[in-house]
Amino acid sequence: MDYFSRQKNTNIRLTLPVVCFVWQIAMIILFGVFIRYDEESDTHWVETKAHDNITSDIENDFYFRYPSFQDVHVMIFVGFGFLMTFLKRYSFGAVGFNFLVASFGLQWALLMQGWFHSLDPQTGKIFIGVESLINADFCVAGCLIAYGAVLGKVSPVQLLVMTLFGVTLFAVEEYIILNLLHARDAGGSMVIHTFGGYYGLTISWVLYRPNLNQSKRMQGSVYHSDIFAMIGTLFLWMFWPSFNSAITDHGDGQHRAAINTYLCLASTVLTTVAISSLSQKTGKLDMVHIQNSTLAGGVALGTAAEFMISPYGALIVGFFCGIISTMGYIFISPFLEKTLKIQDTCGIHNLHAMPGVIGGIVGAITAAAASESVYGKQGLINTFDFTGDFKDRTVLTQGGYQAAGMCVSIVFGVVGGAIVGSILRLPIWGDPADENCFDDEVYWEVSEHQESIPPILEYNNHMIHKQQDLSESNFSVEHCES
Amino acid sequence: MDYFSRQKNTNIRLTLPVVCFVWQIAMIILFGVFIRYDEESDTHWVETKAHDNITSDIENDFYFRYPSFQDVHVMIFVGFGFLMTFLKRYSFGAVGFNFLVASFGLQWALLMQGWFHSLDPQTGKIFIGVESLINADFCVAGCLIAYGAVLGKVSPVQLLVMTLFGVTLFAVEEYIILNLLHARDAGGSMVIHTFGGYYGLTISWVLYRPNLNQSKRMQGSVYHSDIFAMIGTLFLWMFWPSFNSAITDHGDGQHRAAINTYLCLASTVLTTVAISSLSQKTGKLDMVHIQNSTLAGGVALGTAAEFMISPYGALIVGFFCGIISTMGYIFISPFLEKTLKIQDTCGIHNLHAMPGVIGGIVGAITAAAASESVYGKQGLINTFDFTGDFKDRTVLTQGGYQAAGMCVSIVFGVVGGAIVGSILRLPIWGDPADENCFDDEVYWEVSEHQESIPPILEYNNHMIHKQQDLSESNFSVEHCES
Amino acid sequence: MDYFSRQKNTNIRLTLPVVCFVWQIAMIILFGVFIRYDEESDTHWVETKAHDNITSDIENDFYFRYPSFQDVHVMIFVGFGFLMTFLKRYSFGAVGFNFLVASFGLQWALLMQGWFHSLDPQTGKIFIGVESLINADFCVAGCLIAYGAVLGKVSPVQLLVMTLFGVTLFAVEEYIILNLLHARDAGGSMVIHTFGGYYGLTISWVLYRPNLNQSKRMQGSVYHSDIFAMIGTLFLWMFWPSFNSAITDHGDGQHRAAINTYLCLASTVLTTVAISSLSQKTGKLDMVHIQNSTLAGGVALGTAAEFMISPYGALIVGFFCGIISTMGYIFISPFLEKTLKIQDTCGIHNLHAMPGVIGGIVGAITAAAASESVYGKQGLINTFDFTGDFKDRTVLTQGGYQAAGMCVSIVFGVVGGAIVGSILRLPIWGDPADENCFDDEVYWEVSEHQESIPPILEYNNHMIHKQQDLSESNFSVEHCES
Repeated sequence: MDYFSRQKNTNIRLTLPVVCFVWQIAMIILFGVFIRYDEESDTHWVETKAHDNITSDIENDFYFRYPSFQDVHVMIFVGFGFLMTFLKRYSFGAVGFNFLVASFGLQWALLMQGWFHSLDPQTGKIFIGVESLINADFCVAGCLIAYGAVLGKVSPVQLLVMTLFGVTLFAVEEYIILNLLHARDAGGSMVIHTFGGYYGLTISWVLYRPNLNQSKRMQGSVYHSDIFAMIGTLFLWMFWPSFNSAITDHGDGQHRAAINTYLCLASTVLTTVAISSLSQKTGKLDMVHIQNSTLAGGVALGTAAEFMISPYGALIVGFFCGIISTMGYIFISPFLEKTLKIQDTCGIHNLHAMPGVIGGIVGAITAAAASESVYGKQGLINTFDFTGDFKDRTVLTQGGYQAAGMCVSIVFGVVGGAIVGSILRLPIWGDPADENCFDDEVYWEVSEHQESIPPILEYNNHMIHKQQDLSESNFSVEHCES
Repeated sequence: MDYFSRQKNTNIRLTLPVVCFVWQIAMIILFGVFIRYDEESDTHWVETKAHDNITSDIENDFYFRYPSFQDVHVMIFVGFGFLMTFLKRYSFGAVGFNFLVASFGLQWALLMQGWFHSLDPQTGKIFIGVESLINADFCVAGCLIAYGAVLGKVSPVQLLVMTLFGVTLFAVEEYIILNLLHARDAGGSMVIHTFGGYYGLTISWVLYRPNLNQSKRMQGSVYHSDIFAMIGTLFLWMFWPSFNSAITDHGDGQHRAAINTYLCLASTVLTTVAISSLSQKTGKLDMVHIQNSTLAGGVALGTAAEFMISPYGALIVGFFCGIISTMGYIFISPFLEKTLKIQDTCGIHNLHAMPGVIGGIVGAITAAAASESVYGKQGLINTFDFTGDFKDRTVLTQGGYQAAGMCVSIVFGVVGGAIVGSILRLPIWGDPADENCFDDEVYWEVSEHQESIPPILEYNNHMIHKQQDLSESNFSVEHCES
Repeated sequence: MDYFSRQKNTNIRLTLPVVCFVWQIAMIILFGVFIRYDEESDTHWVETKAHDNITSDIENDFYFRYPSFQDVHVMIFVGFGFLMTFLKRYSFGAVGFNFLVASFGLQWALLMQGWFHSLDPQTGKIFIGVESLINADFCVAGCLIAYGAVLGKVSPVQLLVMTLFGVTLFAVEEYIILNLLHARDAGGSMVIHTFGGYYGLTISWVLYRPNLNQSKRMQGSVYHSDIFAMIGTLFLWMFWPSFNSAITDHGDGQHRAAINTYLCLASTVLTTVAISSLSQKTGKLDMVHIQNSTLAGGVALGTAAEFMISPYGALIVGFFCGIISTMGYIFISPFLEKTLKIQDTCGIHNLHAMPGVIGGIVGAITAAAASESVYGKQGLINTFDFTGDFKDRTVLTQGGYQAAGMCVSIVFGVVGGAIVGSILRLPIWGDPADENCFDDEVYWEVSEHQESIPPILEYNNHMIHKQQDLSESNFSVEHCES
């Protein structure tokens, strides 16, 4: 497609391979220096342990974390990947670049999170196990959220740069929020969704394209691309209880995280449908809302899921999130684009940023309102981990630190996004011209063009299909009877 | 699309939001009054328990039920949802309304099942845990089966009404069958499939549309919609062993339930293919059969899966179910439509009702035939739970009660379906006109129209397309902004 | 479609049903004679065991194997099935025949593996449990790999014959490699992938079709078929850590298998993208590479996953596998077709055969290089199971036996494939004519013809697509060769 290069150089034959190779080699070297198996995964500790300690199923966290890990893993690669396939002609980029970015991000996350959270002082090594893999997937989620804002407008090289910095920023803000402020955020309302949301929105704001409507023909969805997107929506929706409960301490907190998220998401679906129907002249539903706003409840319960928010409390959170998120798609997104010049392809502001902030607030309030009568003395200590340096902390101060944590995640998202965005503005990354946005043909070998036929030819093409319609309707009868 | 309203008023802009809001608010209130976390999920019992009792992995059922829960959850939302996407132009409705209905149903099911099965006499509360979530999903399955019969012919409001009553009836018949009759039905051949099947068929019979062939152009599938449907088929097929073993007692019964279902389904596939090939002039296979009849074995083993039916017994059940179910699509469905005036869009009679009845019979026979030589004395007591009031029951009487249970499920399905069906005939629900059935454009904003154009219009259609292109691009803008 | 029969008789109305019925009945009889529930699944052992032994969750392997089983199960039916849907017009055959073949194969595998691995000498019975189901799925995987080489060129009857012999050969080579040679191969680099790869390639070589380009119009993919294929790719990729760890002994080895596979696959994605981009003039990515080569790392770590290969070691293996596998699609596949007359539809040589051999070599080297300093004394014994007859074996001899095992798997693949291939050449199996290959209409009732326009119209249609067709047919060839 030479006419692309005439307009803008989208040739990434040099940059993409170089980045992939150099960064992967760097990963190998850094892993060689820092990463080792943890005690449960390494065999040479056998002697040092009672024999039953290593083969006994009870002591072995693998069986209790691994199913949660696989659910989260599916959310990262199938969930996020397919959720973004809704565009008419950018499904390869959605699922393919999501795949690439996540695969790099999780390696870098193991290192960054390791340095900040689990670097062993004596050996200077990072010891990884199944739980580390879950945390790496979580970290990647933040970057994939950001991808949603710039979907179709950046090159894979830019995405990799976004991820490199995104993971780095994530590990730092996570360390500040969870370790220094000792805020609780099991499902990452603040750490993952608020940060990821504002990180992506700010980058999209820096990369604003005034003439984006030149690629209007490629915007919007086709019938089957909307169904592909529902695969992503459903796998995110179904496994969100695993997401919010994956790394909580074993015991009652993990149960609550799963139950609360399950209930919250169910109630989100009903209010999303209600608002979506209200928004159309004849009450028709809009796939954009069903694909996205139904998930807002899971985001908003990311912090409070493990608290004693109570089942009806979870339903209430979901109730309002469905309303607010759908309203966001109807009113706020157009406003963001027209007034603030933020082009948010997937509407991550309505699905992640806003619900993430709500989640942070809900978390702060429910923490501050926690009482011994509800939690019990030991329960409070277990739930908020009031141990060690924090054993004298009151629930009220905890609420304050939760709120502080949320501000940290916003600041990191906005400031980090501004810096990374300006790096991405350099003219070296091979990003597409305004008229070629949302088009897989820029970065992918696309086998056929049926669906993107120039308007002039469209008519003849349809003459050809006349005679087929008959045979089609014949079959239909048969199909219907069966 | 004003010309719809001219024919029949399908405007649900008032009814759908009202129903969603009112019912969701009702759920919140009822949950506030009745639903609490169970002992494993609530933290304020920590003191009352040995500390290791709450954090110990061994005592914690979460890790042993949760993976089964997630498998069942996938079957409900992806399995049932995508199985119904086979229609040319009703995939939004299939997967979207399935999503809506299930999300409401599981909340209502937690209440209904709680009142009947686990209401605590002292506190008057319902204590929920992970197992409650599985049961709620099971209850919803009954209503989604019923949806299959009326797919494309009802409005989302009617579906919500169907679900409200369906869940209510389900909880009652489940209580009668499992608690009063003390019948065993781990995988719900009777409670879920027989009830759901006859409930849907009776509703479809009451809502009979003599002029349904006016929407013939929309019936039947297109190539890619059949592949989407296979996603649903496969996830149902693969996770059915989890479905039948999810709520059985831990121990050998749970192993058998998984193994038997796995084997039974495998043998169903072969006989389904055989009959499907026999039914066509040149031995070609019919996707309708592969998508549906391959699942009949799992339905038919819902009751007997946990019994000592033996591996080859499971294969035999699958063998005949594949034959009978495929025959059903070829011979019985046309007969039902022509003679009994039952329009069964997905053929749930062949996939759920008939195999469900077979499952009930198989369960009754295998229970009556159970012997101490096969089960062992303790084994019989464990398998059929001959304890408490039922400790003197013989396997023969048990067989009788199993058969009685099946009759109860049929009666509840037929009578309940008749009542609910007549309620749904009221002209207030915004159901589509005969010529607009199976068409997503009635209830969904559809972005492009390529595949659903009446032949005559096809040419002008492109003239139309011009003007649509605007609306489409409007949509696109919206879509993009969002 | 009578004009098919004029060319070649593809009528399978007799053969397919007969084979399905007869073989399924044979399965029922053989299961009746040989297969019984194992101790954990059978209830009549309750007396003979301490009561807590049967209901206790800790002793019950079900909960620790079952989630792995379900992940593997998804890989077999959704993973392999959808990976092969990439062809423009053969998606029904891909997912449907995969479904049929796997359902027969797993029954036959339970018998064959039972006879060779777990036949009880006293009773002459095979006792099956959840782990047997995993092994049966593994065995089936070998045959599905072989299917990839002949995709679109054989009849379902031929596939069933391929599977009957494939499973038989598999059980024998598995017995020789794992039991007699006592080689370790938890993830089946040798037993599954090397064997399956060469088995399929040899069959495809025997069935060489010189005039296959007559069906060129059906070769290559369309936009949405490539997205369907990504569903298969991602579920294989995500669950591969479960595949490689499913049947390892509990404890540290299982952790390593999961962690190593996770890391190896991540690094494969980056190098696959790099080489794919390098291979195109403007650095565009090729879906064929992303769909397939990204999985090569999982194959290559099948043997060594449970060893102490160390995290960076896993990354290195993935690094080179991504490069070699993608290079394979670009250079080796065309060579195989032109020079060696091997038509490999899915490119299993690059995804399974070659990476499988690499995996065998990596396994042999890492085994031979294993040292007490790394594994610890007890660790070496645990990892390589140096017990019983093998307690005196050194790691060096172990390395030798690993290499020997790989040769066995290649020999079984090539020799077995040659024999089975010549059986499949008999003119009785109803395979398609050269001009009807890769076309679902030969074996499936297809509802609409949009994408497969009758030859007469095709011309005009192509006029429209001229400028595209060049790129398309180029692509197609490439796509087919690969």
